[in-house]
Amino acid sequence: MSPTSDLLAAALAQSGFHPRLPQQRRLYEAAKAAIHQQRLGAGGKLPSSRDLARDLGMARNTVIAAFEQLAAEGYVVSSRGSGTYVADLQAHSASMRGVGATPQGRSTAPAATPSARLSRRGQELTSYAAGPQFEIQPFAPGDPDFSSFPFKLWQRLQNRVWREARNDLLDYGQSGGHLPLRQAITEYLRISRSVKVEVEQVMITAGTQQSLDLCAQLLADVGDTAWIEDPCYWGARRVFQARELKLRPITVDSDGIAIAAADLATKPRLIYVTPSHQYPTGAVMSLARRRELLDVAVRKDAWILEDDYDSEFRYTGRPLAALQGLDHDDRVLYMGTFSKVLYPGIKVGYLVVPPALIPAFRSALYDLQRPGQLTVQATLADFITLGHFTAHVRKIRQTYGARRELLRHMLAQKLPRSVTISREESGLHLVIELPDQVDDMALAQQAAMQGISVKALSTYYLKPPIRRGLLVGYAYCTPEQITDYGRLLGTIIAAEAAA
Amino acid sequence: MSPTSDLLAAALAQSGFHPRLPQQRRLYEAAKAAIHQQRLGAGGKLPSSRDLARDLGMARNTVIAAFEQLAAEGYVVSSRGSGTYVADLQAHSASMRGVGATPQGRSTAPAATPSARLSRRGQELTSYAAGPQFEIQPFAPGDPDFSSFPFKLWQRLQNRVWREARNDLLDYGQSGGHLPLRQAITEYLRISRSVKVEVEQVMITAGTQQSLDLCAQLLADVGDTAWIEDPCYWGARRVFQARELKLRPITVDSDGIAIAAADLATKPRLIYVTPSHQYPTGAVMSLARRRELLDVAVRKDAWILEDDYDSEFRYTGRPLAALQGLDHDDRVLYMGTFSKVLYPGIKVGYLVVPPALIPAFRSALYDLQRPGQLTVQATLADFITLGHFTAHVRKIRQTYGARRELLRHMLAQKLPRSVTISREESGLHLVIELPDQVDDMALAQQAAMQGISVKALSTYYLKPPIRRGLLVGYAYCTPEQITDYGRLLGTIIAAEAAA
Repeated sequence: MSPTSDLLAAALAQSGFHPRLPQQRRLYEAAKAAIHQQRLGAGGKLPSSRDLARDLGMARNTVIAAFEQLAAEGYVVSSRGSGTYVADLQAHSASMRGVGATPQGRSTAPAATPSARLSRRGQELTSYAAGPQFEIQPFAPGDPDFSSFPFKLWQRLQNRVWREARNDLLDYGQSGGHLPLRQAITEYLRISRSVKVEVEQVMITAGTQQSLDLCAQLLADVGDTAWIEDPCYWGARRVFQARELKLRPITVDSDGIAIAAADLATKPRLIYVTPSHQYPTGAVMSLARRRELLDVAVRKDAWILEDDYDSEFRYTGRPLAALQGLDHDDRVLYMGTFSKVLYPGIKVGYLVVPPALIPAFRSALYDLQRPGQLTVQATLADFITLGHFTAHVRKIRQTYGARRELLRHMLAQKLPRSVTISREESGLHLVIELPDQVDDMALAQQAAMQGISVKALSTYYLKPPIRRGLLVGYAYCTPEQITDYGRLLGTIIAAEAAA
Repeated sequence: MSPTSDLLAAALAQSGFHPRLPQQRRLYEAAKAAIHQQRLGAGGKLPSSRDLARDLGMARNTVIAAFEQLAAEGYVVSSRGSGTYVADLQAHSASMRGVGATPQGRSTAPAATPSARLSRRGQELTSYAAGPQFEIQPFAPGDPDFSSFPFKLWQRLQNRVWREARNDLLDYGQSGGHLPLRQAITEYLRISRSVKVEVEQVMITAGTQQSLDLCAQLLADVGDTAWIEDPCYWGARRVFQARELKLRPITVDSDGIAIAAADLATKPRLIYVTPSHQYPTGAVMSLARRRELLDVAVRKDAWILEDDYDSEFRYTGRPLAALQGLDHDDRVLYMGTFSKVLYPGIKVGYLVVPPALIPAFRSALYDLQRPGQLTVQATLADFITLGHFTAHVRKIRQTYGARRELLRHMLAQKLPRSVTISREESGLHLVIELPDQVDDMALAQQAAMQGISVKALSTYYLKPPIRRGLLVGYAYCTPEQITDYGRLLGTIIAAEAAA
C-alpha cells in the first residue's frame, strides 16, 4: 500500500462524514482536504485508480469518479499515459486571495508545461472557477426544484411543435428569436413586471450569461469600468472579467446598492444590479435608490443592466415593479431567464434593450452566437400562451414558500441568539447571518463533510466590509430533507458560533 | 403620395424582379438599393407603414416585414413614437472598405444619440455584421437540407428521453457534457476522422461559435495575433475580433494555408484552419502543408484550432484524416458541429482539447456558458449509438452529391469559357471562379434581384490577392429549383462575364 493510499485511508476512517454521504464523495473530500493542507504535495503522483481502489476497498468506478471531479476542479492534473498528479494550488491562489475565491472549487491552471500554456485571461478565469458542483445535495443555493416541472404536459406541447415539423424551427433563430415567444414575454413583462416594452425590443438569448456577455461586448471596451454590487452574483462577475472590464464593487445595504462619493469619482460604463432581490443578500432596492441610480446613469452616461433573475418568487406582498419601468431615458437593459422557474438546462433567457440598440443587438446576437433551439422556444411560447407558465409559477411559489417556512422553523430551534436569518421574502435561498468572528468558509467546509452544500456569504464579496453568513437553498429539498438537514445544519452552526 | 412612396413605387415597377420573388422581398430590395445609391438620403424619414402600404397597394404586414428586415440590417433606424429614418451608411463603412464588408447585410451603428452609444468594439462588431438572412432561398451557401431530417424518428427518441424524465437531464451540463454523447462522439471521431481522442478530452459546446470563443478567451489575450486563412469563414473572424485579437490573414492556395516568410516574422497565438475543406474555397490541405503547420505551431508555441465543419460531406474518394491525428505535440484543438448534418438550430458542437487543457476548459465551459440542453444531447447520443447518424449522413451525402452534379451540369451549359467551377469534391456549395475584372459583389447583387442568394467570394478576403467568384449553395435546393435557378444564374453570369 502506497503512502498516499495510507494517508487517504486514514483520512477516510477519521473524518466525521455523514452516514449517507456516498463513497466517491468521501474520497473526493478527503483528497481535497489533504491537498489543501499540503499533506498531498504539489506535483506528487497519485496511485493508479486500480491500485487505490484495491487499497481502499472501493469499486474502481468510485475512485475514477472522484478523480474526475478532482481533475475538473483543478486539484489534480491527469496526463495521458503518465498518470495523475497533484496540482500546484499556490501558483494561482496568491493573486486571488480575498477577492472571492471559493473554498470549494478553487482550481488551478494545469501544470506549466509549454503545451498547457493558457492566456493570461485564461489563467485568471480558471484559477478561481467555481467549477461544476459535485452532485445535487441539500441546500446548494440557487437550484430550483425542477422535479416539479410538468414533464408530460411539456412533452405534449413539444410533440405538437415537432409534428408540424416546420423547417424554420430547425434553422438558426433570426430577428431576435421566435416571434410568438417574444410576444408572450412582452405581455408577461408588461403585466407582471411593469416593464415598458414593445416586442421589437425583446431578444431571446441562451440565458443570462449570454445576455450579459452580449451587453459587455457591445456596450463596454476592454479596460472600461463596470460597477457591480458587492456582494455579487459570480456568473456576472466572471463574464465581465472575461471581457476584461475593470470591476468596481459597490457596497450593498438593506436598501440595495449604496453608491458612495468615492464611487462617483469613477466613470462606469455598465452598472450591473439585481433590484428585485439582490443576489445573494436578498435586499430589495428602495424606490429612492432606484431613482438615484437612474439619475447617476444619465449623469455618467452609463448603461444599467437589470438582472431580474428570480422576480417570480415573492412569497408575501406585491412584487416590486422593475427598475426599467421607471426609466425615462432608455438607460436600462432588462434581463430575465426561464432557468429558475422551469428548469436550468432549458437555456432560454431574454433581454429587453432600448429601441436605439435594437439593430446592433439583433445583428450581434445572430452573428456572434448563432442562436438556435427554436423548437424549445416554440414549445415555451405555447406553454406561456396557454396559461401553464402562470399556473406553474403559482404552484412552485406555494411549494417553495412552505419549504422556506419549514427551514426557518428547523433552524430557529437550533440557532443561538447571535445568529439571525435574513428577513427578505423572495428567492430560492435564505441567508443565515453570522457574527463577524465566525469563519463562514470553514463552516461551509464542515457542513460539506456532512453532505450539506451551503455557500459562505463572504466568498461573494470583493472588498470589505465583508459580512459573514451562509446561503442555504431550500427550493429543491423535500420536507424530509429540510427537517433532517436543517436540524443538522443548525447544530453545526450553533456549535461553531458558541466556540 | 409622398416623394419616398413615389420613388419606391417607380423602383418596384422598373426593377427586373424574378416573377416568384415575394412582395416584401421586392420592397426590401428596392429600399436597400435606394439607400445604397443615396436616392434615399441618410436621416430622411420614411412614410408610416400604413401610408406606404396604401401608396404601394401592398398589405401593411408586408411593409412592416420589409421595414423590420431593413432595421435588423441597419439600413433604417426606428425610433419609438417618432417613426423610421434612413441610417447613415457612410459613418461606418469607410473603415471597413475592402475588408470583407458584405454587399447584402452591411449595417450601421444606430444614430449617434447619447443613448445609443455602443462601445468601440460594439460599433466595429455591428458595423459590418452579416446579419440575419432575409429568408431561405436558392443558393445561399452553407445551408444544409434539414427538411430531410428524420423528424418522426427523432421525436420518438426524444420522447423516450423525456419519459424517463431524469432530473439530471434538466440541470445544467457538467463535466463537459452528457457522457453517453461524449462517448459516441469519441468513437465516431476515432473511426471516421482518425482523431486521437479519449472521452475526457471531448467537451460538448453550443456549436462552433461557442467552441471558438472558449478557445479565444482561454488561449489568447487582447492584442495577441491569430492567423486566419484568407479567405476565411466570417463567423470565426467575428469571434476573434470580439475577443480583440489581431488578425493576420494567411494566403490560401489549392493546397490550403500557404505560410509565407513574412508571416513567420509574426508571432501567432492561435492558428485557425479548415484543413478538410477550406472555407470557402474548398481546398484540401496537403499532407506536406499539414506537417509544416504542425511544425510551425511547435516552433511558435501556438495553438492550432482545427475546424472540421463539414468533413461528413465528401462525395468521392476517402475523406482525409484530421490534422489532429498527425499531431504529436498536443498542439491541436479539434472542433466539429452537428448543425450541418442534422439541423442548424440543434446547437450542439464538440471540442477536443489536449489532455493538459481539460481542467481549464471544463471549468470555463461551465462557468462562462452554463451549458444545458441535455435532453437534446441525450437524444442525439441515442441517435448516434443506434446507427441513425451514419445512415442519415449516407442518405444526405447521396442527395447532395446528385444535386451538386445537377448544378454543375446546369451551370456548365450557360457559363462561358472564362468562368470555371471549382473542382473540390466536398461541402455544401460550389465556387464559381470568375475572371478578375468581373465585379462579383455587383453580380451577387444582381442575382439577389432575381431571388438568388449567392455570396461574392471577394467578401471573404481580408487582403489582396483577392479572387473573384460566387459561392453557390445547393444542398437544400430541390432538383427543380437547381434546374430553374441554375440556368438563370448561369445566364446572369454569362451576360456579365461577356460584358
